[in-house]
Amino acid sequence: MNIIVLAGGQSSRFAPLSNKNLLPFLGKSLLYRQLENLKDKLTADITVVANPEDYELTQTEVKDFSGVKVVAQEGSGQGAAIISALKDYSGDDSDLLVINSNDVFTDNLYKDFLAALPALRKNNHGLLTGYKVEKYFPGGYLVMNEKDHVVSVIEKPGEGNEPSDCVRLVFDYFPSLKELLNALNAGSSEKDDLYEVVLSDMMNSGKVFELLRYSDVWATLKFPWHVFDLMSYLLSTITEKKIHENAQISDKAIINGNVIIEEGVRVFPGAVINGPAYVGKNTIIGNNSLVRDSIVGDDCVIGFSSEVARSYLAGKVWLHMNYIGDSIIDRNVSFGSGALTANLRLDEGDITVNIKGEKTNSGRNKLGTIIGSDVRVGVGVKIMPGVKIGTNSVVGPGVVLNQDIDSDSFISIKQELVTKVNKLNINKINRDDFTAKLKK
Amino acid sequence: MNIIVLAGGQSSRFAPLSNKNLLPFLGKSLLYRQLENLKDKLTADITVVANPEDYELTQTEVKDFSGVKVVAQEGSGQGAAIISALKDYSGDDSDLLVINSNDVFTDNLYKDFLAALPALRKNNHGLLTGYKVEKYFPGGYLVMNEKDHVVSVIEKPGEGNEPSDCVRLVFDYFPSLKELLNALNAGSSEKDDLYEVVLSDMMNSGKVFELLRYSDVWATLKFPWHVFDLMSYLLSTITEKKIHENAQISDKAIINGNVIIEEGVRVFPGAVINGPAYVGKNTIIGNNSLVRDSIVGDDCVIGFSSEVARSYLAGKVWLHMNYIGDSIIDRNVSFGSGALTANLRLDEGDITVNIKGEKTNSGRNKLGTIIGSDVRVGVGVKIMPGVKIGTNSVVGPGVVLNQDIDSDSFISIKQELVTKVNKLNINKINRDDFTAKLKK
Amino acid sequence: MNIIVLAGGQSSRFAPLSNKNLLPFLGKSLLYRQLENLKDKLTADITVVANPEDYELTQTEVKDFSGVKVVAQEGSGQGAAIISALKDYSGDDSDLLVINSNDVFTDNLYKDFLAALPALRKNNHGLLTGYKVEKYFPGGYLVMNEKDHVVSVIEKPGEGNEPSDCVRLVFDYFPSLKELLNALNAGSSEKDDLYEVVLSDMMNSGKVFELLRYSDVWATLKFPWHVFDLMSYLLSTITEKKIHENAQISDKAIINGNVIIEEGVRVFPGAVINGPAYVGKNTIIGNNSLVRDSIVGDDCVIGFSSEVARSYLAGKVWLHMNYIGDSIIDRNVSFGSGALTANLRLDEGDITVNIKGEKTNSGRNKLGTIIGSDVRVGVGVKIMPGVKIGTNSVVGPGVVLNQDIDSDSFISIKQELVTKVNKLNINKINRDDFTAKLKK
Repeated sequence: MNIIVLAGGQSSRFAPLSNKNLLPFLGKSLLYRQLENLKDKLTADITVVANPEDYELTQTEVKDFSGVKVVAQEGSGQGAAIISALKDYSGDDSDLLVINSNDVFTDNLYKDFLAALPALRKNNHGLLTGYKVEKYFPGGYLVMNEKDHVVSVIEKPGEGNEPSDCVRLVFDYFPSLKELLNALNAGSSEKDDLYEVVLSDMMNSGKVFELLRYSDVWATLKFPWHVFDLMSYLLSTITEKKIHENAQISDKAIINGNVIIEEGVRVFPGAVINGPAYVGKNTIIGNNSLVRDSIVGDDCVIGFSSEVARSYLAGKVWLHMNYIGDSIIDRNVSFGSGALTANLRLDEGDITVNIKGEKTNSGRNKLGTIIGSDVRVGVGVKIMPGVKIGTNSVVGPGVVLNQDIDSDSFISIKQELVTKVNKLNINKINRDDFTAKLKK
Repeated sequence: MNIIVLAGGQSSRFAPLSNKNLLPFLGKSLLYRQLENLKDKLTADITVVANPEDYELTQTEVKDFSGVKVVAQEGSGQGAAIISALKDYSGDDSDLLVINSNDVFTDNLYKDFLAALPALRKNNHGLLTGYKVEKYFPGGYLVMNEKDHVVSVIEKPGEGNEPSDCVRLVFDYFPSLKELLNALNAGSSEKDDLYEVVLSDMMNSGKVFELLRYSDVWATLKFPWHVFDLMSYLLSTITEKKIHENAQISDKAIINGNVIIEEGVRVFPGAVINGPAYVGKNTIIGNNSLVRDSIVGDDCVIGFSSEVARSYLAGKVWLHMNYIGDSIIDRNVSFGSGALTANLRLDEGDITVNIKGEKTNSGRNKLGTIIGSDVRVGVGVKIMPGVKIGTNSVVGPGVVLNQDIDSDSFISIKQELVTKVNKLNINKINRDDFTAKLKK
Repeated sequence: MNIIVLAGGQSSRFAPLSNKNLLPFLGKSLLYRQLENLKDKLTADITVVANPEDYELTQTEVKDFSGVKVVAQEGSGQGAAIISALKDYSGDDSDLLVINSNDVFTDNLYKDFLAALPALRKNNHGLLTGYKVEKYFPGGYLVMNEKDHVVSVIEKPGEGNEPSDCVRLVFDYFPSLKELLNALNAGSSEKDDLYEVVLSDMMNSGKVFELLRYSDVWATLKFPWHVFDLMSYLLSTITEKKIHENAQISDKAIINGNVIIEEGVRVFPGAVINGPAYVGKNTIIGNNSLVRDSIVGDDCVIGFSSEVARSYLAGKVWLHMNYIGDSIIDRNVSFGSGALTANLRLDEGDITVNIKGEKTNSGRNKLGTIIGSDVRVGVGVKIMPGVKIGTNSVVGPGVVLNQDIDSDSFISIKQELVTKVNKLNINKINRDDFTAKLKK
C-alpha cells in the first residue's frame, strides 16, 4: 500500500501560530504522531506532502521513520498535493490511503478500516470516511445511496439541510493509485477543489466508495483555539503519573494526578503541578508556581510565582510572576515579570477572535491570548481576551493590549509623567513607631 | 414582653455597602445575631422594622425564628419606626424593649438588664442605657439626677462640655407599650427626632428612667470602616480552631491560630490562613494564597497567590493574584489578576474617605478600598487608599484609581499606543548562550 | 606604625547610593571590615580621614575600636587627605601605611606585606602595590626598573600601551611618616593629584619603592554596579549555614546552601532562601517569598510572594508582592505591592547607566534599578533596567519608569480616564452556572 499524508496547504486562519503539523504535543508533532500510528498499523510506503517553505523542517521531522519520503507541494489544494506526491511514481500500481497530517483520531478508525480492507481490495472499491456529528458542522456532508455507498459530498449545506449525519473526514482509500492519478491529471478545476471534483466525477462514473462510519474522537487544527481541544484530548490519554528518572523533583513540590514529566525537568520547592499536564524536556518549574491542565513544552522556565492554567506553551517560553490562562504560546516567547493574560470577558460571554479580518466566535468563554513565535512581552503588560500577537514582535512595558499585533511590530505606550518637588521628608517619617504598630 | 428591633433608617454614610443589618459576619447578619441573642435571653414577641425596600430580604433573614414578624417602616426616624411596629398592635399592654439591629454588645448588658427588670416592672420605671466612654464621642450624652435617673439627653455637646461619661446606646425599656405608643401618637416634631422629643417629654413629665451603665464592648456600623472594628471584635470571639468535617484542607496548607472554616471549604496546597480568621461555606482558598485577620464569606475563590489581609469579603468575591489589604468588599465582586489595593499613604498618615461629599478622617493609617456589590475590577488595576467603588460598576484594566466611582459606572483608561517596526530579530538572539550563563 | 585609612573623597559616580565606606555588607561596613582586618594584622595607630559631612557617622562607625581616630578632610585629593590626617601629628617619626577604606582584598596581601616589612624598615625603602590584571583596566599602571623597583606610574595608558601588568592598588608603605609629610607640604599641584605628583617626585629623587605584586581578590566600589561584585565576593566567603539561635524559622520554610541568618530574623512558612545569601537582624522573610544570591540587610520586610534575586538591600527595605532583580536598594525604601524591576534588555545586551550625564556600559546584561535612601515606590510601578532613583523621592503608582529620577522628586503619571454608564447588569450574570462549569 501507498499512503499520502497531506501536511501542506494554507493555514492563514491558524496564524500567528506556526505550522500546525509540526507543533509539538506531549513531545511529538501531529505529523510524527500520525506517522507513528501508520507505521504501527499498516505496512506501506509513505509520502508526506509539505509546503515548500516547510520542506526542510518536515524532512527533519520524518527522519526517525524508514520508508517515508517528503515532497514539496506544487500548486494548491489537495488534488495538487496528491499529484505532487505521485509525480515521480514509477512502481507497480498499488492501493492508496490519503490522510491529513493534523487529524487526530483513535485506533478504532484503523480497526474498522483494516476489517474492511480485504473486501475493498477484492471488490475494487474505494472508501470514504464519515464522522458522525450530533449538531450542524460547517464541513462536507456525505450523501449515501441505499447500499450505503457514498454518492456525493455536499459542502456546508447549512443547518437543517444536512443530507446525513456524516461529515467527511479525510481518510480516503483507493484500490488503484494509478486510477486516481489518471483521474486527477485528466480533471480540471478553476478553484482549489480539484480533488473534490475528481472524487465527484469518479462517483458519478460508477466508482463505488464504501462508507466508513466513525464516531470516536476526532480533533483537528483549523482555528488557533482548536489547540485547546486537541490538548484536552491528548492530556486525557495520560492515564498515570510518569516522571523521568533524571527529572529532579523537590520533595516540597506537589504533583497531583496524571502528569508526564520528561528528562531533565527540575521542579522547585513550593511548585504545584495539577494533572492532567505535560512538562517537556529540561523545563524548570520554579518556586511557588502552579501549572494545571496544560502542556508546557521543552526548555521552558516557569519562573517564581507564575501560574499556567489550561494553556499550551510550545517550548522555550520564559515566565516570571505571570498569569497565563487559556492561552496558546508558540516557541521562544518571554514574559516580563507581572505580565498577565485576561481570559474572561466582563459579561462572561463567548470571546471573539479576529480571523483574517473577521470577528469569529471562538465558542469559549475563557480564552486568553494567542502568541506567535519569537515574541517579547514587557513587564506588567496586560493582554486582553482573544488578542493575537504576531511573530517577532515586542510589547513594551505596561501596555494594556486590547488589539491584535502584527508580526515584526514593536508596540509601546506613550506615557505622560509629571515631576514635582517632593516636599515630604521621607527620612522623618517615624517608621519605627509605625513598624511597632504593624507588628503588634 | 414585646421587643422592637430597629433595622430601618437611612445609611447613606455607609454607602456603597449594602444594608448594614444584613451584612454577614461569621456567617450571620447582625440582625440574625441580635435575634439569636434576644431569643436566648428573653421570652418575647419581636417585631423587626425594616425599610420597605428591604422588606423581603429581612423576611428571609428572620425565617429561622418563631414569634418574629417584620414590618415595613412608614415615615422616617425611630419614632416613626416604633409607630410602624405597633400600628396594628391589638394585644394586652405589655412592657417593651427597643434596640437597634446593628448594635453589638456582650451578654453583660443582658445580665444587668435582667437583674434590674423585676424592680423596673414593680416600680413602673423605664430604663435607658449609657455607654461609658473614655474620650469625647459625637453622640447623645445622658444627664442624670442625684438618684441616678436619666433626666435629659444632650446631643453632641462638644468636647469639654460633656455632662457625664455616658453616651446613649439604644437599649430602651418601657414598662408600658401603650404609654409609649400614646405619647408618640400625641407627639410631634418637624425633624426626624420624634422619639427623642417624646422621651424628653416623658422625662419632663416625671416618668422615671433608670440608668443602665454599660462598659463592655459596643460595636456598631455607621461609617464603612466600622466594619473593621466589628470584624476585629467578632474575630476576637473565636477562641479555638474549628474546621468543619466536610471541609477539605490540604496537608500542605497551613492554618494557624483561631480560625473557623465552614462546610464545603477547600484549602489548597501552599495556602496559609493566619487567625483570627473566618472562611465561609464553599469558599476556595487557592494554592500559595494567604489570608490573615480577615473574614472571607461564602462562595469566595481566593485564587492562586493572592493575599487577603485585615479585610472583609462579604461573599462571592473572586480573587486571582491580588492583594486585598484593609479593604471591605461586598457581594459578587471579581478582581482580574494582578489587581491591587494600596492601603497606606506615602506619609503614612490617617486616610480620609469621601462621606456624602465631605472628606472624613477614618482614623486609620491603613485603609484600602470599599467596594459595593456587583463590581468587576479589571486586570492590573491599582486602587488608591480610601477609594470607594459603587455597586454594579466596572473598572477597566490597568486603571490607577484615585477617585471614587459611582454606582453603574464603567471607567477605563485612554491609552495612547505607538507602533513601530521591530528591527530586532528576536529569533537570532542567542538565547542558548544566555540560558547557559543564567543557569550557571 | 601609623596607618591612614582614606574614607573621604568625591563619589559622585556612586550616586544615588550613600557613602560607600559605610554601606553595610554582611552586617559590617567596608570601613569597619578594614579596621577589623588592620587591628587583627598590625599593631598601629589608625587615622580615618572622612569627608566633613560624614564625620559623625564615621565616628560612630569606629567606636568599637581602640586607637582609631577620625579626622575631617580639608581640601580634596588623597594628598590633602594625608595632610589632614597628619596635621597635628606630634609623635616621633614612625613608618606609615596608607590604604583606602573601600578596597577589599584577602589576607594574602597582608601576609606578603608583613614578610617584606623587616627588610623595608632596614633598607629605608617604601613599597607600592601592584594588582596583576589580565586585560586592560583604566587605572594607573606601575613601571618597574630592572631591580623590580617602581620608578613611575602611568595613568590610563590606553589598551595596548600598558607598561606592565600591574595596576596601582592603594596599599602604600613609607618608612618615614615625616619624610612623606614634608614632601607633601613642599609639593604643589593645580589638580587633585598632589599625592601622585609627590610620589613621582620621590621616585625621581631616588627614593626606592619596592613592588608588592598581588593577584588575589580585589574588589572596590567606584560605580554602583560594583556593589554586585563586592557582594558576590563576600557571599562566596560564607562557607556554611549559620542561623542565629534567636531567629525563628518556620519548619515550612526552606533554606538551601550557605546562608547567614542574624538575630531576630523571622522566616515564615513557604519562604525559600537559596544561598549564598545574608539576612540581617530583625528582618522578616514573609510567606511564599524567595530570596536568592542576595544581601538583605537589617530591619527589612520581604513581604508575601516577593522575590529578591541577585540584589543588595541595605536595610529597612519593605517589599510586598514585588520582584527585585539585580538591583541595589539603599536604606529606608518601600515598594508598593506589585512594583517590579525589569532587569533585562529586550535584546539581552549589556545595560548602560547614566553616570554624571554619560551613558556608561555596566558590563552586565542583567541589571535592575539603583535606588538611593528614603524612597517610596508606588503600587504597580515598573522600573526599567539601569534606571536610578535619587534619595528622598517618590514614584507614583503605575508609573513605567524609564528615566533617572533626581533626589527630592515626586513623579507621577498623568492618566486620562473615561467614565461611561455601565450598561451591563452584573447582578444578572449567571455566575452560578459559570461557577459550576469552572469547577467541573
